Amino acid sequence: MGKPFPEDPYKQLELAIEAVFRSWMGERALIYREKYKITKDVANRTAVNVVTMVFGNMGNDSATGVVFTRNPGDGTRKVFGEYLVNAQGEDVVAGIRTPQPIDNLVKELPKTYAQLMKTCEKLERHYKEPQDIEFTVEQGKFYMLQTRSAKMNAVGMIKTSVDMVKEKLISRDRAILRLQPEQLDQLLHKTIDTAAAKNYPSIVKGIAASPGAATGIVVFDVKKAVQFGDEGVKVILVREETKPEDVPAFFASVGILTSRGGKTSHAAVVARGMGKPCIVGCSDVKIDYAAKKFQVGEVPTIEPKITDDFRTILSWAEKTKRLGIRANADTPEGANLARDYGAKGIGLCRTERMFNAQDRLGLFVDMIMTQTVDERKAVLEKLMVLQKSDFKEILKAMEGHHVTIRLLDPPLHEFLPNIEELINKMHSLEKQNNSNETEITKKIFNRARELAEINPMMGHRGVRLGITFPEIYEMQIRAICEAAAELVKEKVDAHAQIMVPQVGIVTELEKIKNIYDQIKSNVESRYKIKLKINFGTMLEVVRGCLTADEMAKTAEFFSFGTNDLSQAVFSFSREDAEGKFLPEYLEKEILVENPFQSLDVNGVGSLMQIAITKGRSVKPNLEIGICGEHGGDPNSIKFCHKAGLNYVSASSHRIPIAILAAAQAALLDKSEKKSKTKKSKKKR
Amino acid sequence: MGKPFPEDPYKQLELAIEAVFRSWMGERALIYREKYKITKDVANRTAVNVVTMVFGNMGNDSATGVVFTRNPGDGTRKVFGEYLVNAQGEDVVAGIRTPQPIDNLVKELPKTYAQLMKTCEKLERHYKEPQDIEFTVEQGKFYMLQTRSAKMNAVGMIKTSVDMVKEKLISRDRAILRLQPEQLDQLLHKTIDTAAAKNYPSIVKGIAASPGAATGIVVFDVKKAVQFGDEGVKVILVREETKPEDVPAFFASVGILTSRGGKTSHAAVVARGMGKPCIVGCSDVKIDYAAKKFQVGEVPTIEPKITDDFRTILSWAEKTKRLGIRANADTPEGANLARDYGAKGIGLCRTERMFNAQDRLGLFVDMIMTQTVDERKAVLEKLMVLQKSDFKEILKAMEGHHVTIRLLDPPLHEFLPNIEELINKMHSLEKQNNSNETEITKKIFNRARELAEINPMMGHRGVRLGITFPEIYEMQIRAICEAAAELVKEKVDAHAQIMVPQVGIVTELEKIKNIYDQIKSNVESRYKIKLKINFGTMLEVVRGCLTADEMAKTAEFFSFGTNDLSQAVFSFSREDAEGKFLPEYLEKEILVENPFQSLDVNGVGSLMQIAITKGRSVKPNLEIGICGEHGGDPNSIKFCHKAGLNYVSASSHRIPIAILAAAQAALLDKSEKKSKTKKSKKKR
Repeated sequence: MGKPFPEDPYKQLELAIEAVFRSWMGERALIYREKYKITKDVANRTAVNVVTMVFGNMGNDSATGVVFTRNPGDGTRKVFGEYLVNAQGEDVVAGIRTPQPIDNLVKELPKTYAQLMKTCEKLERHYKEPQDIEFTVEQGKFYMLQTRSAKMNAVGMIKTSVDMVKEKLISRDRAILRLQPEQLDQLLHKTIDTAAAKNYPSIVKGIAASPGAATGIVVFDVKKAVQFGDEGVKVILVREETKPEDVPAFFASVGILTSRGGKTSHAAVVARGMGKPCIVGCSDVKIDYAAKKFQVGEVPTIEPKITDDFRTILSWAEKTKRLGIRANADTPEGANLARDYGAKGIGLCRTERMFNAQDRLGLFVDMIMTQTVDERKAVLEKLMVLQKSDFKEILKAMEGHHVTIRLLDPPLHEFLPNIEELINKMHSLEKQNNSNETEITKKIFNRARELAEINPMMGHRGVRLGITFPEIYEMQIRAICEAAAELVKEKVDAHAQIMVPQVGIVTELEKIKNIYDQIKSNVESRYKIKLKINFGTMLEVVRGCLTADEMAKTAEFFSFGTNDLSQAVFSFSREDAEGKFLPEYLEKEILVENPFQSLDVNGVGSLMQIAITKGRSVKPNLEIGICGEHGGDPNSIKFCHKAGLNYVSASSHRIPIAILAAAQAALLDKSEKKSKTKKSKKKR
Repeated sequence: MGKPFPEDPYKQLELAIEAVFRSWMGERALIYREKYKITKDVANRTAVNVVTMVFGNMGNDSATGVVFTRNPGDGTRKVFGEYLVNAQGEDVVAGIRTPQPIDNLVKELPKTYAQLMKTCEKLERHYKEPQDIEFTVEQGKFYMLQTRSAKMNAVGMIKTSVDMVKEKLISRDRAILRLQPEQLDQLLHKTIDTAAAKNYPSIVKGIAASPGAATGIVVFDVKKAVQFGDEGVKVILVREETKPEDVPAFFASVGILTSRGGKTSHAAVVARGMGKPCIVGCSDVKIDYAAKKFQVGEVPTIEPKITDDFRTILSWAEKTKRLGIRANADTPEGANLARDYGAKGIGLCRTERMFNAQDRLGLFVDMIMTQTVDERKAVLEKLMVLQKSDFKEILKAMEGHHVTIRLLDPPLHEFLPNIEELINKMHSLEKQNNSNETEITKKIFNRARELAEINPMMGHRGVRLGITFPEIYEMQIRAICEAAAELVKEKVDAHAQIMVPQVGIVTELEKIKNIYDQIKSNVESRYKIKLKINFGTMLEVVRGCLTADEMAKTAEFFSFGTNDLSQAVFSFSREDAEGKFLPEYLEKEILVENPFQSLDVNGVGSLMQIAITKGRSVKPNLEIGICGEHGGDPNSIKFCHKAGLNYVSASSHRIPIAILAAAQAALLDKSEKKSKTKKSKKKR
């Protein structure tokens, strides 16, 4: 028995509204009540519409149905939906009777069918969007219950955008604006065949770090992954977490899975950069790195394709946007892919990724293990040859566009094995009395321990390496200058930009600039040519932003590294945050969005504004871009447009999304300015 | 054979000047030439004074000597110095002949002596500073060669300050301004008897992290240190580095030495807070934690004493300064010491230091090991009793003044043993087949690993703990409220301030404020009293500063945590920076000063200015202080005065220094304003 229902009709209404409110919002009701200060007083003042009910279950001349004015699956211009004769809406939903396809209605209730088709057309003309319609027929009389814009998948959205322009229903601007950039991601990666996937059980859940689908043999060991990959075996790399030393295995694998880390962990960032599917934070996976294998059967996947309609939309967006779009790409292959996807230049070429290739990681570790500058220089000389040829190829692939090359950034110990693994290895080698191997391991352990840091993210990295080991930056700068010089000789229109990471103090930048000036003029006189190279800095350290006016005196361009900048502004280590407290922060609504995915406009954004203003106070035309993960995020791109940046740089696979988002930002900006002008005219 | 000397006299002059320049500056000459753009052109335009030489070696009516107008060792008003008859200055310096004390001159050359004494008085009257004078007598004629203000030790400076005021030579303002606050540090700690120390060989060098002198038995093990300390043995704790779990051993030790870390490492900060001498970064000390002992003989030490003159100066400074001076103190003893040293309130009471006391660290570790909220609450209940009684005593000791209590800040894993040590322990226990102990160690290891972070400084700490484990902050807030309530009943005038650390998002602060409001009103109604408590936030996260206007709506006060803020602004982890690249940065003049010692005005300071302006735009009288290490640094204190802060908070032993620096800042400010008024008057 429930509570007795009160006699007071207002009380009845109040309880009814509260019941609806609770059922609608479930557990969140109380939070919202608190947040929006919804009290019972408000409920008492709420208006209620009372309408006559129509009945679709009054005989065979009655019916009810739901239609889309166009097919939401592929966007085809044909009314799509279903209906039931002599039924109410709930019968359609409940699934007791099987609804009929809408085409059958023309035979059963031809008058109604004609009315429905006319209404569909009228509504589309009015709303300029495909509609999702509910209707009921009561004894031959046609009633519209509801209409709203139809939700469609990316394919449907793109086709209807192009079609409606052809039909002169909407303008090109509107066609661009109605798309959700993020949704395009569906079209840029392999997907699982969802119908077929139903036959396979789900084993474990993780965080979707990089989209796509892949199947392969699970491999826990980096070397084995590389070996299998080379043999043409499809490999899924499974690790607790990944480090730069694991990157060769990324190249060799078709997908990556980690048990730790979040959407911006090393594995996630690298995988996204390569466009490989990646799942992180599968905390239920316990790995002991024994050579376990398991196979789960191959789930069929579907290849992505960029349709003609998609290309049409992108070409419209291209003409509309004001922001430049560059790609984050670290290899010649990456540069070519980026160009295919529509990138005009490279905004971030991470030189350390080159060290991770199989043929040079060994050399790089040798360099780290050296004790003297001379030993180090000898190894660097060998690395220089490899880097130079890479730079040449990348610059050539991006002929006519800027290629921004970042000098070495991560701390050196990231290239050595994990200390915990080394300790365990030493203990097990000792047990085996393998004194030779123990000695080598101990040597590496000692160096790893020497280089180990308590907070490596804020440690001995970036320009700090360039200051303390100038020979490394010298080698990289020389490799870039010589690559560019050789291309000048070959009449290739190369535009290298040298970018210094982690700069917080202008004297750091000046020191590296001096090195650069010397090497550049040396190369110019040796090759008897003039080099078109720019020298600039990343802004990813808070102090760099706060003193951007000083920086602009030395830097020829700025590029915001918003990954590190967001970390520093929030004091959130992204790897720790996403694995520990950030999910709870989002759940408890301490934060509305993950600041590593969508740029925090209030905090990070305001600091960027300070830097932009200060920088351009010294050089009004200073080129300023962004090369953090946010460069591929639609909302962040809108901010970048408003803030007056010259370009955004994103992973190759997100280039089309970035182009669309940039076009939308330009259109919104235009319409805002228009409405302002109108308002100010009205005021007059 | 050297180069032939050129005939051109200008060329000769140029070479001579360059030679002087090189010998004067040594290796730095080239750096300076570059920095100040000193070219040979400049040298050509340099003027040279040519003067007649006077000779002190023209017979027994000739002499040379050096005197101080007052004793530089203790400030006594009596000319102090030495001379040689029939000699040149270089003879005094070379030490071939033994110079005579100046008093003997009255007999040997009475006329010269009278002239010297008269000159000393005249120079002091002119310069209003004790002078350091060189003179020569050539055949009875007295020549002054040079005079400059005398360098004195702290005792001398203080005595002469007070004396010269009494003599009406200088004003009180001048007496305050002529002191170097940093120099006072000499007077606030035990010192080594330098004369006696010559008899002992130096074993190892390290970084001076906390001043003072101590002798004792070297102990490597924390538990043993505590045990020996309890038995009254003088212990020097020697560790690679220290962690909060080691703090009980700090209490038990008379001095601390570590082989890693810099001036702001954990060991350094804790030792400074306790006023215990500490040397860090003795990298030549290799420790394997075997129970080694060695004794080096007891070097005599001298106790510090605050003289009457010192007290006089401080009382003058107290009346002159505008900034409030509070202390960083975490225990009732610390609060009493701070009050003795002249602190008016506590600006930073670190609640986690209380957990480090021997009788509660075990409880705290129990709390960390709990798996459920209920288990955790049960342990917290026990901790609450201990914390409450501490708060009561501290508030009582600071009766009439504010006590700012910071809620739990460090990440939980800091209270568990080091992972590397745990692995080694497990391996050795396995060897011994000690399965019971292995099981326990494994449990702790698993928890430590679960809580471990890649960048703990930017990890799960501060308010992030308060959000995810609200029961911990609830316990602490309740302990503070109840302690304050009981003191109201006892008619003690207590002023607690509750401070939330690591806040970067206003919703974090609001969440904790809600908890606080509920607990406070609950305690008020239970005790039937009104509480005088303020609720505020630390500003140590960049985002907190950038959004200080939002913060000020919820916070009743701000306190800048400039240690963490400097880390975030520079992206320098202080422990890694000071051990790795920072020394090289200072040497290569990338940075002029260590930003963890002296506040970086350009970067960190400009961010603080933004926060102050934004905060006071919402609450014009918002109390704003600083509680980082910089609160005890004279230059930083000058900045704090200019920036309009209400107070600085420093380690107890630096309170007198802070008082003096604050007075000097006020005086400089006054004189700057005066000179501005004069200038603007002139313009009119």
